[in-house]
Amino acid sequence: MSSSRKVILRYGAGRLRREKDELAVEEPLEIRLDTRPLVVTMRTPGHDDELAAGFLHTEGLVQTRGDLRAIRRNPRNRAGNSLDVFLSADVPADLSRLARRGYASSSCGLCGKESIQALQRRLKAISSRLKVNPKLLAGLPEKLRAAQPTFERTGGLHAAGIFTPEGELIVAREDIGRHNAVDKVIGFGLLHGLLPFDRHILVVSGRASFEILQKSLAARIPILCAVSAPSSLAVEFARASRQTLIGFLRAERMNIYAGAGRVRPMVSS
Amino acid sequence: MSSSRKVILRYGAGRLRREKDELAVEEPLEIRLDTRPLVVTMRTPGHDDELAAGFLHTEGLVQTRGDLRAIRRNPRNRAGNSLDVFLSADVPADLSRLARRGYASSSCGLCGKESIQALQRRLKAISSRLKVNPKLLAGLPEKLRAAQPTFERTGGLHAAGIFTPEGELIVAREDIGRHNAVDKVIGFGLLHGLLPFDRHILVVSGRASFEILQKSLAARIPILCAVSAPSSLAVEFARASRQTLIGFLRAERMNIYAGAGRVRPMVSS
Repeated sequence: MSSSRKVILRYGAGRLRREKDELAVEEPLEIRLDTRPLVVTMRTPGHDDELAAGFLHTEGLVQTRGDLRAIRRNPRNRAGNSLDVFLSADVPADLSRLARRGYASSSCGLCGKESIQALQRRLKAISSRLKVNPKLLAGLPEKLRAAQPTFERTGGLHAAGIFTPEGELIVAREDIGRHNAVDKVIGFGLLHGLLPFDRHILVVSGRASFEILQKSLAARIPILCAVSAPSSLAVEFARASRQTLIGFLRAERMNIYAGAGRVRPMVSS
Repeated sequence: MSSSRKVILRYGAGRLRREKDELAVEEPLEIRLDTRPLVVTMRTPGHDDELAAGFLHTEGLVQTRGDLRAIRRNPRNRAGNSLDVFLSADVPADLSRLARRGYASSSCGLCGKESIQALQRRLKAISSRLKVNPKLLAGLPEKLRAAQPTFERTGGLHAAGIFTPEGELIVAREDIGRHNAVDKVIGFGLLHGLLPFDRHILVVSGRASFEILQKSLAARIPILCAVSAPSSLAVEFARASRQTLIGFLRAERMNIYAGAGRVRPMVSS
């Protein structure tokens, strides 16, 4: 259930009216690893298994579907807000690899540019030679929006979508947290044996923080497009990781912040 | 430094052009408490002392300016991304009170509605009898936008502003993280001895998550206005805490999700 109806008051033209309104649902999800509490995230319910799988993949704990033995509801949480993930016997639950949310730890410098290598967590840079046409990219936000029903009703959800180089949508997910929407589409890929997404395009409905770039790198996605602005650190991260980063992607217009070599035509001036 | 210039490629009308662009800066900030690492947050540099003070207040560790002995740069971090907070001698550094980001712990139910009391962390509901005119509220986003210079250049920052009931802006702050912008304005209040903000209005430029409501409650703010949508949990939290929550606040229009009794005129239909 990704939206919830509530009676509210709407003010307009100097008057208050009582009306029904649809709201994006926000609830906590606890992810447990082999029954031990691992993390709690505020998310929009739905596709929780993908969220958990994607989170564990982008945090470096799980590489393939085979690394997962089972994902199921914690039976002791009746609200459905606790999920049990069980790893396969040969997969170490190496929590030291879980740099929570990937932040630089104080021991690595914590100093922006100098710590980007630490933020990359020893993941190799992207070497994909994929090329895409900017006209194709310009049409992707509209396709993502068309696959985003809850936003239309609530105005309150982020979306993420994975596309083929031909512009075909593979999966789209919505969530109140932008990083959760990305974890869900990557988790979908992991659960369906589609990873790595190394010939794919990720489109996000809002801004691109460095965390989104980090998650894309973990899934080996060569091209990330955001409908809104990237942060400075996202750009620096993308350049260091040889990811293509596009922002302010609108019909017929976009800014290319990193990895322009994957966008045809090449620079003309 | 809240924005950074980078050379990028801009695509439009079928051509790529090389241009300079301004980006919102995103860098990690480590907050240390009596030299022990407490938390790392991705933030836009600037007003870090307010961010730290506001974070500690909204997490329940610090109540007044007098609880703080000093806030200063960690001299061992040359990048300026680590801040030392020292508490006064009589203030316990009771980290058990730091429900990190305020999420329900698994021991309290983790079940959405049933855990709202836990999310409120034993803070009393708001009893303020403040009344405001909707016409006054409708003008606040424009005032906030006027005080938000970096957004204009980068499109990448959230803003938060504290207003008097007469619509006068007391402080506005920008950050790449919406909760950081709120911590900064509350921290400003704490450092200037202005807390509690119990006759004040908080306006945020984007959406209202439950976390923003939680922070507002800690600072005793009776009225929270968001330019965009609230989440379901934000509405439930506001109703349980008797906070006034307004969303989609635009010129002459708004939705009132909770605490309509503080908005004049009263319901007319």
